[in-house]
Amino acid sequence: MVDVTLLGTGGMMPLPYRWLTSLMVRYNGSSLLIDCGEGTQIAMRERGWSANPIDVICFTHYHADHISGLPGLLLDMANSDRTDPVTIIGPKGLARVVSGLRVIAPELPFDIELKEFSGQGETFELFGYTLKSFRVNHSVPCYGYTFEIARAGRFDKDAAEANGIPLEYWGRLQKGETVTNGDVTYEPSMVLGPARKGIKVSYCTDTRPVESISENISGSDLCILEGMYGDAEDYEKAVKKKHMTMQEAAKLAKDADVSELWLTHFSPAMGRADRFADEIKGIFENAVIPKDGRTTELNFEE
Amino acid sequence: MVDVTLLGTGGMMPLPYRWLTSLMVRYNGSSLLIDCGEGTQIAMRERGWSANPIDVICFTHYHADHISGLPGLLLDMANSDRTDPVTIIGPKGLARVVSGLRVIAPELPFDIELKEFSGQGETFELFGYTLKSFRVNHSVPCYGYTFEIARAGRFDKDAAEANGIPLEYWGRLQKGETVTNGDVTYEPSMVLGPARKGIKVSYCTDTRPVESISENISGSDLCILEGMYGDAEDYEKAVKKKHMTMQEAAKLAKDADVSELWLTHFSPAMGRADRFADEIKGIFENAVIPKDGRTTELNFEE
Repeated sequence: MVDVTLLGTGGMMPLPYRWLTSLMVRYNGSSLLIDCGEGTQIAMRERGWSANPIDVICFTHYHADHISGLPGLLLDMANSDRTDPVTIIGPKGLARVVSGLRVIAPELPFDIELKEFSGQGETFELFGYTLKSFRVNHSVPCYGYTFEIARAGRFDKDAAEANGIPLEYWGRLQKGETVTNGDVTYEPSMVLGPARKGIKVSYCTDTRPVESISENISGSDLCILEGMYGDAEDYEKAVKKKHMTMQEAAKLAKDADVSELWLTHFSPAMGRADRFADEIKGIFENAVIPKDGRTTELNFEE
Repeated sequence: MVDVTLLGTGGMMPLPYRWLTSLMVRYNGSSLLIDCGEGTQIAMRERGWSANPIDVICFTHYHADHISGLPGLLLDMANSDRTDPVTIIGPKGLARVVSGLRVIAPELPFDIELKEFSGQGETFELFGYTLKSFRVNHSVPCYGYTFEIARAGRFDKDAAEANGIPLEYWGRLQKGETVTNGDVTYEPSMVLGPARKGIKVSYCTDTRPVESISENISGSDLCILEGMYGDAEDYEKAVKKKHMTMQEAAKLAKDADVSELWLTHFSPAMGRADRFADEIKGIFENAVIPKDGRTTELNFEE
């Protein structure tokens, strides 16, 4: 139902064997890309994907490793004959940064709608999902994102009958539509049980572990967090440069009751990131140290 | 003496198996990079090279596939602790384009000196070599480059003696220095024979075949030219989009008496470029259809 792919797992600079961190979420024919560093379009092409279905591109912050691939991606979308508008979302400064980078992609066959936010973040209703940005703590203003699909309650035939709702309206009410017939108004809540668990994905890189992360990733089916360093001796570097260690991320995820954690944004100095797997699973057993291209499909619970 | 590496052979967009066209010329501890599309820093890293020794970066034109990797490269140079100034050379518009792209690389620990040229091109004396840009014919102002190292004549002991030059000055004169002793001035020409053949590399992509190319690539030891298309049926596309076919490039190189030709800037729609090798060698036998990373070392003739 929701396909999630971590296109790359690198931080700071692209490496020959590790693309920069970037997340693709595909839902209902519409793709959402979070972050787009140098090479992200190549990582997509490695998977055989066209850039055409990307309706939304959002940025956590404007360090080059998270946005330098934007002009190439936009030109790639143009080459894929996209003409539908594209929404670009990001923190304050978005217009200035996109306009700077578009010096080499000035003419595109589609419109771009910029949605710039500030403060603690903002919520966007997009292509059937809710995207929320939340402020974290990095050396520049930086935000995490949650992606959520709500799921209505189960259809309650007894309630529909008890409320005397004509059969012909049941379908529309079940789809969430309010139905009016003369003076009478029927609400979906009259036929639906309590809302069921939906799907929630959260993504957050380039930050110290802070309270806003715990709050926002809480209950995620999949949570993707920065694990820039794994060695204890790099802890001070993490604090100084405002990054997060694998151990800190694993603890955050466990305490926030997420179902699964993927670590990412590994330091270029880190060779095999998965050598920390045992230690990290000791903190949170559902933690994964993924490779580029890690993919999962998330579905509503039965 | 001069190491030349074609970092990538792709045109338009980077592919998982083909980096964008970009040339590295290394001479005497100083590196010159011509063009820097998305992924060029990764292609360099694949070869194990640091970005630190790059003293000069020059651009043929400002289509994204030739410059989108610049901000990442500059940051990579910063990470490699470079503090020496960097010279960036390119056609009119350089300041505007570099300033746009630097929105994501605003702070660098080295100075950047921009050298913008226009018209038919310009000649630059750099780190022991002469770089010349020459105008070609593309959909936007675009230039080719020649890289040349001059070689002085052989030391002529008989001439030195005949001119009565004290032995102690011979070494300095041989190195090209003018020596003055009281009222007497000695010139290098008094001890050197006629200038010998130096080393010449030429590079030109994104153009129709025009006279300025023939004139400027003439006599190159190595000439790198665009061969965007190989199939006869793509000829009209080449004319329309102002690109050059492999066949046109091979004919240009042969007529201009270059020693060796490398084709590059292959269309992303072209699978194996070397399937045209037999046909192209039929036009010019010293033509090569290289893969990414093709390298050669050029030396003065004995």
